[in-house]
Amino acid sequence: MTKLRAGILGATGAVGQKFVELLEGHPWFEITDLAASDRSAGSQYSEAVNWIGSAPIPDVIASMEVASLNTDLSCDFVFSGLPASLADRAEPRLASEGYPVISNAKSFRMHRDVPLLIPEVNPDHIALINNQNWGRGGYIVTNPNCSTVGLTCALKPLNDAFGLEAVQVTTMQALSGAGHPGVPSLDALANVVPFIGGEEDKLVHEPNKLLGRLVNGAIQAEGIAISAQCNRVPVLEGHLECVSVKLGSRANSDEVREAFESFVSPIRDLELPSEPDRFLRVFEDERFPQPRRHSELGGGMTVSIGRIRPCEVLDHKFVVLSHNTIRGAAGGAILNAELLLKKGLLQPRKG
Amino acid sequence: MTKLRAGILGATGAVGQKFVELLEGHPWFEITDLAASDRSAGSQYSEAVNWIGSAPIPDVIASMEVASLNTDLSCDFVFSGLPASLADRAEPRLASEGYPVISNAKSFRMHRDVPLLIPEVNPDHIALINNQNWGRGGYIVTNPNCSTVGLTCALKPLNDAFGLEAVQVTTMQALSGAGHPGVPSLDALANVVPFIGGEEDKLVHEPNKLLGRLVNGAIQAEGIAISAQCNRVPVLEGHLECVSVKLGSRANSDEVREAFESFVSPIRDLELPSEPDRFLRVFEDERFPQPRRHSELGGGMTVSIGRIRPCEVLDHKFVVLSHNTIRGAAGGAILNAELLLKKGLLQPRKG
Amino acid sequence: MTKLRAGILGATGAVGQKFVELLEGHPWFEITDLAASDRSAGSQYSEAVNWIGSAPIPDVIASMEVASLNTDLSCDFVFSGLPASLADRAEPRLASEGYPVISNAKSFRMHRDVPLLIPEVNPDHIALINNQNWGRGGYIVTNPNCSTVGLTCALKPLNDAFGLEAVQVTTMQALSGAGHPGVPSLDALANVVPFIGGEEDKLVHEPNKLLGRLVNGAIQAEGIAISAQCNRVPVLEGHLECVSVKLGSRANSDEVREAFESFVSPIRDLELPSEPDRFLRVFEDERFPQPRRHSELGGGMTVSIGRIRPCEVLDHKFVVLSHNTIRGAAGGAILNAELLLKKGLLQPRKG
Amino acid sequence: MTKLRAGILGATGAVGQKFVELLEGHPWFEITDLAASDRSAGSQYSEAVNWIGSAPIPDVIASMEVASLNTDLSCDFVFSGLPASLADRAEPRLASEGYPVISNAKSFRMHRDVPLLIPEVNPDHIALINNQNWGRGGYIVTNPNCSTVGLTCALKPLNDAFGLEAVQVTTMQALSGAGHPGVPSLDALANVVPFIGGEEDKLVHEPNKLLGRLVNGAIQAEGIAISAQCNRVPVLEGHLECVSVKLGSRANSDEVREAFESFVSPIRDLELPSEPDRFLRVFEDERFPQPRRHSELGGGMTVSIGRIRPCEVLDHKFVVLSHNTIRGAAGGAILNAELLLKKGLLQPRKG
Repeated sequence: MTKLRAGILGATGAVGQKFVELLEGHPWFEITDLAASDRSAGSQYSEAVNWIGSAPIPDVIASMEVASLNTDLSCDFVFSGLPASLADRAEPRLASEGYPVISNAKSFRMHRDVPLLIPEVNPDHIALINNQNWGRGGYIVTNPNCSTVGLTCALKPLNDAFGLEAVQVTTMQALSGAGHPGVPSLDALANVVPFIGGEEDKLVHEPNKLLGRLVNGAIQAEGIAISAQCNRVPVLEGHLECVSVKLGSRANSDEVREAFESFVSPIRDLELPSEPDRFLRVFEDERFPQPRRHSELGGGMTVSIGRIRPCEVLDHKFVVLSHNTIRGAAGGAILNAELLLKKGLLQPRKG
Repeated sequence: MTKLRAGILGATGAVGQKFVELLEGHPWFEITDLAASDRSAGSQYSEAVNWIGSAPIPDVIASMEVASLNTDLSCDFVFSGLPASLADRAEPRLASEGYPVISNAKSFRMHRDVPLLIPEVNPDHIALINNQNWGRGGYIVTNPNCSTVGLTCALKPLNDAFGLEAVQVTTMQALSGAGHPGVPSLDALANVVPFIGGEEDKLVHEPNKLLGRLVNGAIQAEGIAISAQCNRVPVLEGHLECVSVKLGSRANSDEVREAFESFVSPIRDLELPSEPDRFLRVFEDERFPQPRRHSELGGGMTVSIGRIRPCEVLDHKFVVLSHNTIRGAAGGAILNAELLLKKGLLQPRKG
Repeated sequence: MTKLRAGILGATGAVGQKFVELLEGHPWFEITDLAASDRSAGSQYSEAVNWIGSAPIPDVIASMEVASLNTDLSCDFVFSGLPASLADRAEPRLASEGYPVISNAKSFRMHRDVPLLIPEVNPDHIALINNQNWGRGGYIVTNPNCSTVGLTCALKPLNDAFGLEAVQVTTMQALSGAGHPGVPSLDALANVVPFIGGEEDKLVHEPNKLLGRLVNGAIQAEGIAISAQCNRVPVLEGHLECVSVKLGSRANSDEVREAFESFVSPIRDLELPSEPDRFLRVFEDERFPQPRRHSELGGGMTVSIGRIRPCEVLDHKFVVLSHNTIRGAAGGAILNAELLLKKGLLQPRKG
Repeated sequence: MTKLRAGILGATGAVGQKFVELLEGHPWFEITDLAASDRSAGSQYSEAVNWIGSAPIPDVIASMEVASLNTDLSCDFVFSGLPASLADRAEPRLASEGYPVISNAKSFRMHRDVPLLIPEVNPDHIALINNQNWGRGGYIVTNPNCSTVGLTCALKPLNDAFGLEAVQVTTMQALSGAGHPGVPSLDALANVVPFIGGEEDKLVHEPNKLLGRLVNGAIQAEGIAISAQCNRVPVLEGHLECVSVKLGSRANSDEVREAFESFVSPIRDLELPSEPDRFLRVFEDERFPQPRRHSELGGGMTVSIGRIRPCEVLDHKFVVLSHNTIRGAAGGAILNAELLLKKGLLQPRKG
């Protein structure tokens, strides 16, 4: 199969770099365009980027020229790692030029007609694309905020099995979630910052859209009461979240565990390249999961759950861990693109 | 005034060292005895201890000989920093020999007749001493577990003003709480461990005893439903806790803040040396409090509160920070001793 | 004694904040002016500063207005924590207006007529002030770069006792040396950066000026060959340096240790408030000194030395630790001012 | 080709675990025996081990029973990750039973007849095996200490090209080098420990053996004067070393760099599975190499060099980085085994 040509918007940023890293050797996609803000445009990628990865920049990418966001692209679709301030304008423009835009930006996540997509959770929400009217076949699909992803993947089996009424979540989020330069080391080392701007609000709204039902072409959001407390901790990769839930119907701890373990990913049979062997992994060892040990499971795409036990205030509590820059950002977007391709929604663009 | 002579049980351990450090230059107490397990007994303190503090061992202490726990002591009372396994037997023995035992160990915290004491929260619980029958004037008084202290200090004004029905707390606890050697660095660095053995259970029970009322010489524990999730984070000092509360009566955020800020410490007028200028400090800056910046406020005895806001599931949420080895251990025990002295319950022991 | 009025240039920066912190309660100086770049000028200090200290901003300082660097000041002299780019112009201007400028900036450290001063090392270099011709009594005095200070304090006794021919030094420098925001946490956490711009060059030249002799009113720099390798490590405060030296005359390890321990600070009898009880502290325990345990010794003004032993390539090797933002920056500058006052070179400025 | 059967001695320790991890899917070797001290013997591996890796224990290994060190093994040869205290006796015993012992322990590294081997540096030293007389074909081959490896790999091209007279090295070593539990987190976090027991001595002697020549069946050690200062820093993996060298013949920086870059690994054509594409990688970016970014290059087997520049005291200075638990321990031992197999020195053991 001929690979589809992918462009990366915001290619020099932290998420853009992760797209570059994860797409190296991808069986279905190859990077043909790197675009970034005017400050970087015109430079060779290796010069423009402050590469923070541990593996070197792939040679073929290193020598590519970074294009301006306003340049014509030669790709079939784009991944967007843009900050919201740039995505606000760039993504609609590209969609109206006919590009599928697979975006990690927050700009359109909560837009009525834009799928907020986790393939294992709500693949049917892709149908929202039909409501978009950019013309020429363009559309926007988004993935959730990094702290939403792990939580929602864990809530999905519970909501299916028992219904969910209320969720309390306290996050301990990795530094990579703030990008580079991000958090100053004097604020991060041996410290916790009990505030991440805008984060708690996303945790209130995004899961309810993700878990919502598609009715007559529109999403009926769930009405789960969610309360979030977000903290930045001195961890490099992996958001750990302490969760308490109130269920719609009674269940014991074994039944909760069983709901996690018996959950069957709806995309299991599609054999998407980025789909991990195990979507959810449940730990028995009460010391686990831990960010440094378990974030990379399943290539960073497995969501880990542990410490399932009764809650003295709500019904049950547990911890969830997910890799914030893979499952929670670039890897999630790539999985979205893989699903869209399988569904016939990504294809070679005609000259 | 002649200083009272204090003995330190478990003098070589992490808490014992903190007693030594905090008592240097204390206006009311001087250390005359250092006792530890048989492994250390007979050695000079500076040889026996793996001193982890940043200031040097006070000269007069460094050259003292460490006594066995079974040796006769020459002091008026003892502070105990013993592990529970040793405290179980050593503390009753010393009480029965007529020593007041001011203990940080967990062994007798939940005993019906032993005060679990935070002077600003429940000074009247001292009356439980009257129920103890060790003979010869000995008694045991305890301070709570390090993660209980900050939480309970914050709950006290709310319980007084509005009543409390339920509390959800997620802790992010410093490494020093595990002592030395404690947590291996390979487990701690750039990681979070979502489990601390026995900790969550203490958070369920200790606050209810601390906030309980003294009725006919016995404590009627409060019946607040408390759910705790405890995590070890790579922080040196200072336990940060994310708290959500359900109140007994309706209040808005301003009223909650006002409850904290208008709370008057019941021991304010006693001028205890370790009592900080401000018992509770409320931050407006939503990035605060942070362990590394604010743990040392008030000499490590101030409890800091921030981010007061409504909770989507219970009623209100906020964060609490307290210094775990000062307010949460040795400093709390010393404040207890100061209160006991003021109440006439510590005095020179007759030969 | 009436306190002298001090102005702080660059008051909102990391070094400026340390001046504010260390001068609180100073017996000889009080802060009357805070000046900073135009971005901060006109604001109240508590609004303009991103305060990184753990103690709160002193109340009287918090409410002061920050002046522009071009405003007339009301003080008797100034401390400068300016970056070199601003110090280049601001310091000469203030000197020419008659202000003594006690500077931590690098701009004039190597200027022929400007003392580069560590009071315990080269107090006689103050005489260089006589060569300065700013008019109206103004002058500039500087303290060395933070990584120079510890090294030079350790070299001084050896150079006096044996002469020094060559020095190899590898530094492991704290994050606070880079200011705030400084090093991004993603570069700092669990990592070492083996490069600090411009730092190695300062270590080659500054010690030779500091250890030089004053001959006919000019400094004859020492000619010690110095080679430096500078690294940034994930430490908050305290630069640790591994040093090897080639001596001018033969000595054994005991004699080297004796040189350190018998060194008498030339300012010992002046009773300067910031002078620590022990200028140099030599550790026998081979695990010491360590940044986190020993940087604060002597209020951050003691320089610690350990692991004295023979070197297989040069003659002797050892480690040196000094607090980089106290002894190595603001504290060093304050000690300089204290010496200048004692020498009659700081006095009330006449209206 | 049928895989050779490998036993792991010390299988539950940190190095033993790394053997297990790195041998998963190895094309030439498969693990058939896991042996450890009596404390673990008899248990299933997954029960006996405190697994510290981030990937899960391979299933087939997890269920294997751990044997005692005294049990008969069923393998063709053994890897030893034993501590020296156990290796002292266990390794000779196994050699005398006819097993090739590929050891990471220090016990026999400096033994006259035991190769201390880095395949790219001194593959001819394998001939020392001929001097060993254990009988039945057994022998011992060792790899160097983790801090020796990176240094020696960098020194090899310089010694070949110019000769080496003296070397100064200051190491900044990762926590994983101390194993688990290893360094307590309270000693490691935000700190540097300027001492590692026994380490500096190894750096003085091991490189001289490794760079020595084989003359008449014996090693003539080089006589390079080496001085080492070893520090433990809060890094997870990767030893960074600041090196200064005095050459035997004059060279400029370009020639030094050229020596590194033109060095041809003597085992290049053998196509050993663990040999990285690039044995040495030279960085131009003066901020590199860094432990967290570059330790994993070449699967952890590439040695990185940067900051080549003149030294003011000796001749040249530079930094070296190598992965301490892969290249510096288990990976190095596996590469040794691969070379031995290619040389016909590992083969199926006859029943």
